[in-house]
Parts: sequence; C-alpha cells; structure tokens
Amino acid sequence: MSLTHPQGFRATGITAGLKVSGKPDLALVVNDGPSDTAAAVFTRNKVKAAPVLWSQQVLAAGSLRAVVLNSGGANACTGPEGFQTAHATAEKAAEVLGFGAIDVALCSTGLIGAQLPRDVLLAGVEKAAGSLESTPEAGLAAATAIMTTDTVAKQALAEREGWSVGGITKGAGMIAPSMATMLSVLTTDAEATSETLEAALRAAVRVSFDRLDVDGSMSTNDTVIVLASGASGITPTEQELAAAFTEVAKDLAKQMQADAEGVTKRVTVRVTGAASEEDAVTVARTVARDSLVKTALFGSDPNWGRVAAAAGYADAELDPEKLDVTINGVLLCSGGVAAGDRSLADLSGEDILVEVALGLGGGEAEILTTDLSHAYVEENSAYSS
Amino acid sequence: MSLTHPQGFRATGITAGLKVSGKPDLALVVNDGPSDTAAAVFTRNKVKAAPVLWSQQVLAAGSLRAVVLNSGGANACTGPEGFQTAHATAEKAAEVLGFGAIDVALCSTGLIGAQLPRDVLLAGVEKAAGSLESTPEAGLAAATAIMTTDTVAKQALAEREGWSVGGITKGAGMIAPSMATMLSVLTTDAEATSETLEAALRAAVRVSFDRLDVDGSMSTNDTVIVLASGASGITPTEQELAAAFTEVAKDLAKQMQADAEGVTKRVTVRVTGAASEEDAVTVARTVARDSLVKTALFGSDPNWGRVAAAAGYADAELDPEKLDVTINGVLLCSGGVAAGDRSLADLSGEDILVEVALGLGGGEAEILTTDLSHAYVEENSAYSS
Repeated sequence: MSLTHPQGFRATGITAGLKVSGKPDLALVVNDGPSDTAAAVFTRNKVKAAPVLWSQQVLAAGSLRAVVLNSGGANACTGPEGFQTAHATAEKAAEVLGFGAIDVALCSTGLIGAQLPRDVLLAGVEKAAGSLESTPEAGLAAATAIMTTDTVAKQALAEREGWSVGGITKGAGMIAPSMATMLSVLTTDAEATSETLEAALRAAVRVSFDRLDVDGSMSTNDTVIVLASGASGITPTEQELAAAFTEVAKDLAKQMQADAEGVTKRVTVRVTGAASEEDAVTVARTVARDSLVKTALFGSDPNWGRVAAAAGYADAELDPEKLDVTINGVLLCSGGVAAGDRSLADLSGEDILVEVALGLGGGEAEILTTDLSHAYVEENSAYSS
Repeated sequence: MSLTHPQGFRATGITAGLKVSGKPDLALVVNDGPSDTAAAVFTRNKVKAAPVLWSQQVLAAGSLRAVVLNSGGANACTGPEGFQTAHATAEKAAEVLGFGAIDVALCSTGLIGAQLPRDVLLAGVEKAAGSLESTPEAGLAAATAIMTTDTVAKQALAEREGWSVGGITKGAGMIAPSMATMLSVLTTDAEATSETLEAALRAAVRVSFDRLDVDGSMSTNDTVIVLASGASGITPTEQELAAAFTEVAKDLAKQMQADAEGVTKRVTVRVTGAASEEDAVTVARTVARDSLVKTALFGSDPNWGRVAAAAGYADAELDPEKLDVTINGVLLCSGGVAAGDRSLADLSGEDILVEVALGLGGGEAEILTTDLSHAYVEENSAYSS
C-alpha cells in the first residue's frame, strides 16, 4: 500500500535486463491526473548523474506525468552519451504513454561510470508501459525494481480524511545528508500548486531523509520526487501537506536505517540543549559519523569518551563542563566527567540511543545512523567487482 | 637516533604501572640547555584533556625544561580531580629535577574518562628521573613508552650542518586533522626564540601531521611540542628551522600512516589543478575520508566513481566536465567520463596513489590515509573493553 493508494496513479516494476542477476530493474510511475503538479529535491553533489540533470530541467515547469526509475546503473560520469540515453528514455516513455518528454522525470541507481545499454533500457520502458496497474501489487513491484543492495522493498503511506500520500524508496548505503544514493517517489491525490508541493517537500526532507546519515557520503543521483494528481478534489494547507510528507518520509528513512549496508545496530543520536537547532544537527551528525563511535557501538561498548570527543570537535558551540552523555538511558558522563558505571549500559540489543545534552539552550535534533561493522566493510569492498 | 641526537637532551621510558599489560608507559624528556625555549601545537577539540589544559598554561611563557608523557590513560573528561593529577605530576617532576612546575609540560594518551592513579604516576616520574640518559637507546625508550595500539616505536631525525632536529611520536588510529590522538615531541640543539620556534612548528605541522587523516576523528589530547636547547650555538633562520621540522614531522607522519589501526593499504590522495591550495586540501581530505572509497581500496577495487562522487560533494570549486581520476598511474576518468580499462589499475600492492586533477588552477595538496579494513573495525570495536 504505497504509490498506488492515492487515487490517480498507476505503477509497475519489471525486469528490463539491466541487472546481471535478472532481478527487476525498471520501475514506472504514472500520474493520470486530473492535475499533474510536481516537485523534487536533488543531490547537492557537484558531480550530477545524467538523469538528475534531465529531471532538474523538466521539473522547472512544475509538472510531471511520469517517472522512470532504473537500478543496474547510475548513468553518472557518463558524459554526453549518458545524457543522450537519459533523453531517449524520456522520449520513449512519452511516446508510449502519449505525452511529451518534458512530462517525464528520470532516476537511476547503480555503479557510477558505466553507460546504460540504451536498447535494453528503451525496450524495458515499452514493456513497463504495458503493465501499469493501480493495484497495491503494482506499487510494491515499483519499490522492488529500484532495489540495489537493499534487502527489502520500502513503502509507506499516510492517510488523511479523503486524501493520502504514498511513497517508495531505495537506499541502503552511501546514505548521508542530502539523501545520498537515495531515490524516492511520493504520490498524493491532494490538489496543490507546484510551489506548495515544493515547500512542503523541502520541509519534510529537512527533518527526515536529511537526518539519516549512514556513512557520510553523498551520491551523484539522489532524488526525491512528489507527484500530485488532485484526484481527491481536496486542497490541504501547505502545513498539512508537509506533515503528511514528513510522516511518509520519516517512515521510509527508518526503513532505510534498518536496512543499511552491514547494519547490526540501529543508532539514534539525540542532541538537546544546543545553542540552536543547527548546532544540534551539527553535533548529532558529527557523533553519528565518527568511525570510532560507530565501531565502539558495533562492539556493544558504551565508550562515552569517544562520544564526548566527537561532540568536542563538531563545529558548534559547546562547554565541556556542561556536557552530559547518556547511552541507552544510563547517564555515563555528567558535566564532562565520568558519571555512572559503564557496565550498566546494556548495548547488546539492536537499538541504541545516544543522548548528548549540551546545557546551553533549546536546540534539539535527532540523527539516525548505524554501527560500523565487518559486514559494512565486506559489502562495500566487493560492490563493483 | 631521535630525541637525544641533538645536544643538550636526556630522555627515558619506563614502566610506571599505568598499563595493565606491564609494558612501558611513562616517558620523560629533559632539556639541559643552555637555552630552554619551547613551542607547541594543541588539539582544536573543545573537549580538552587535563594535560592539554596544563600544558597550554605553562607554554604561555615560551619556555620548558621537561615533558612528562604517559600512555595507559588520557586523563580527559576527568574534571578537577584529573587536573589536580596533572598539576601534581608537573610538581613532582619539577621537584625531582630541580626546577619549577611551570617548566614542565604534560602529555597523556589512552582511554578517555578514567582517572589516572596519581600515586602510581608520581612514583613513575621519580623512577624516570633516575634513569635519564642522552644515549640513542634512551630516545627509543621514550618513543616506546608512549605507544598505545602502535605496533612500532616511531622516531625521526633531520641533520644539518652543526645542528639537528630529533622527534618521536605515537598515534595509530583516531588520527585526523589536528593530529588526533597524536603525541609528538621534537628536540633541537638550534638556538631560537619561542616565537620563531612556534612559527616554524606551525608551518611544519600544517603540511605534515595535518595532512594525515586516517578516520576523520580528532582527539582530546593531541599535542606536538618542540624543545630547543641552543647547545649547538647555531641560530638557523625560521625557514631553515621550519624545513627541518617538516622533514622530521613528514617522516613521523609516514610512519603513523604505515602503522595506522587496521591498515592494509597506504593511500596517498593527490589533488592538482584546484582553484586554491585550500580547495586542494578540502577535496583530498574528503576523498581520503570517504568510507566508500576506503572500503573499495581495501578490496583492491579501482572504483573511480566513488572518488568522483566524493570529490563532487567536497566543499570546493569543481567542474565535473574537467575532472580526471588516475589510480596507480592509470587514467580511469577523463573529463568526468570513464576513460581507461579499470582492470589495468593494479591495486594488489600495499601502496595506492589516487590522483584527482580538477583542471581549474594551480592548487595542489596531498593527504595520507589508509583503507578501511576488517582489522580497523576489529581493533576499534574492542579497544576499551
């Protein structure tokens, strides 16, 4: 129950033949209207994949009728040939669906630097267009076709009085601020202008996908797109839309955290008492990203000294004499000095909460991350070979 | 041949009993003059260990007669009690050596958050003072006593006409900008004011220790101290001093890179053609720190796409269409697009050179780093337990 729950959408996921494994690798999402407003948030990486460059152009108009997504190749660092492949993909989708190429956005994920086989891709688009459905299974098929090292398909839904928001995502590593190597499509049958959609989407992404940080990397392909069909006939406020987008995006972010590459611990870093929300995010992100903290948590070691050291080098206001660190509910560092018995902090479970209280102001933030495990090293040292 | 090669210095390394293992854990370096000028560079972490707070105070005078260094405990996050332990250590050294506590700097390394056993430490200082020598063995003993997860003692020497610079260091993980968890003492028999020493030391650190980045962390204890005895009677220029300090510090940095925790590959990231030297450092550091790059190199995988993606999210000027990536001499990405056959890049050896050419200007920099291996995860997940 995701993309196709809101009225006015069809989806599919098929095997085009881009993946050597023969698993599904091409998804198509179509907005049947009556409205076709859309908005998107893209990677801030200066090295942008061809589908990102394409989608940024077509989104300038604030409307979309379809999104083609593929796994099995990122189409990044592929130069003019890669951009032509992207353009041809949109043209093919427009041709078989009966609208213009400017109505089609693109998302790709996989290895950077290899050209996508254009014929295989275009044949896949044609095949996908013939299998579009508005069933729950069709949404799941789309979510499945964009998986790379993901082990489970990721879908979410927020229901409101008479309208709803559905969403799918992929991403299991290389996830970081700005949603690195994360693709996500949200659909809603609410009525909204593209300006309202974009404002609501940015507000949602800022407190959901942007607060998930697995390894600090940022990809060439990150994209979150929202399509609005208006089929419910209901026009929520920007705040109502943002709240629904946030609900779906937070749910999807949690699913990505749980499925991140090599994860054995789901870690939440919560910072309170910061001088500002921005400082809270900075401290939480620095702790979440610190390799020594992440390896300690993998070892179920409540090594609060590493948390304190990481907080101390974050680019934020901090008074070491006011610093408290609590791990899984046990206060281990109070006023910058050892407090409780570290053996009381039980980190043997899969969920770890690291709380850092700065005692300076009202700024708060949470970052979701994972431990740094042998499996992470294993999976990422063998990805392209 | 290190600390005690320049005239006017004695050193020692002994077992005080701070380490459970019974290995050497306390070093003492004494400047017998005739001069006693000194300078230091400390961690920029806001959470500073007690010995750092102490040493910053005494260094304000620009002179030192001795440095006491201990492994087996960082004396960080230890509050007033920890600071009193530091103060007592300096007082004890001053008492047994016959000068003032203000002449004694301190360095500590080990677990954060535990108090050092004061009696054990003070007895160790007394014992060390009785075993000071100016032999090469004494310098090696000092280098050995400050080891933590280091597997080899680290010494270096730069000889000049009539004067020299010696140095020791420790650090094998948690090494990052600002020399995280790195302690180093340099000695020279050159004559120099403390102002000249400090300027020369900062210039050397900036292009040596600050260009070594193993895991992006920054410790609470980092310290580099230089002591000048003036015993050679020679007064080099600031540039001559800086060059000699740089020679020693680069040698020590290379040794730390080779001995970094869990290293299987020694990686040099060289950036050329940047808009500025600062941009070159930023891009090199971002690539060097990227977990996906580091795991790929561990897997001997010339995954240049990850290098391009990391360069693209660095906070520096970059034109994706001018980006070249060369790994171990094989051009793999030219103008932002796949170039050569990636199978030609042989990464099976221990040394890997990643070259990133930005094609924008004359800025150049190198960062030394390592791969991210199973051994890194193993060593750091079990450190404090």
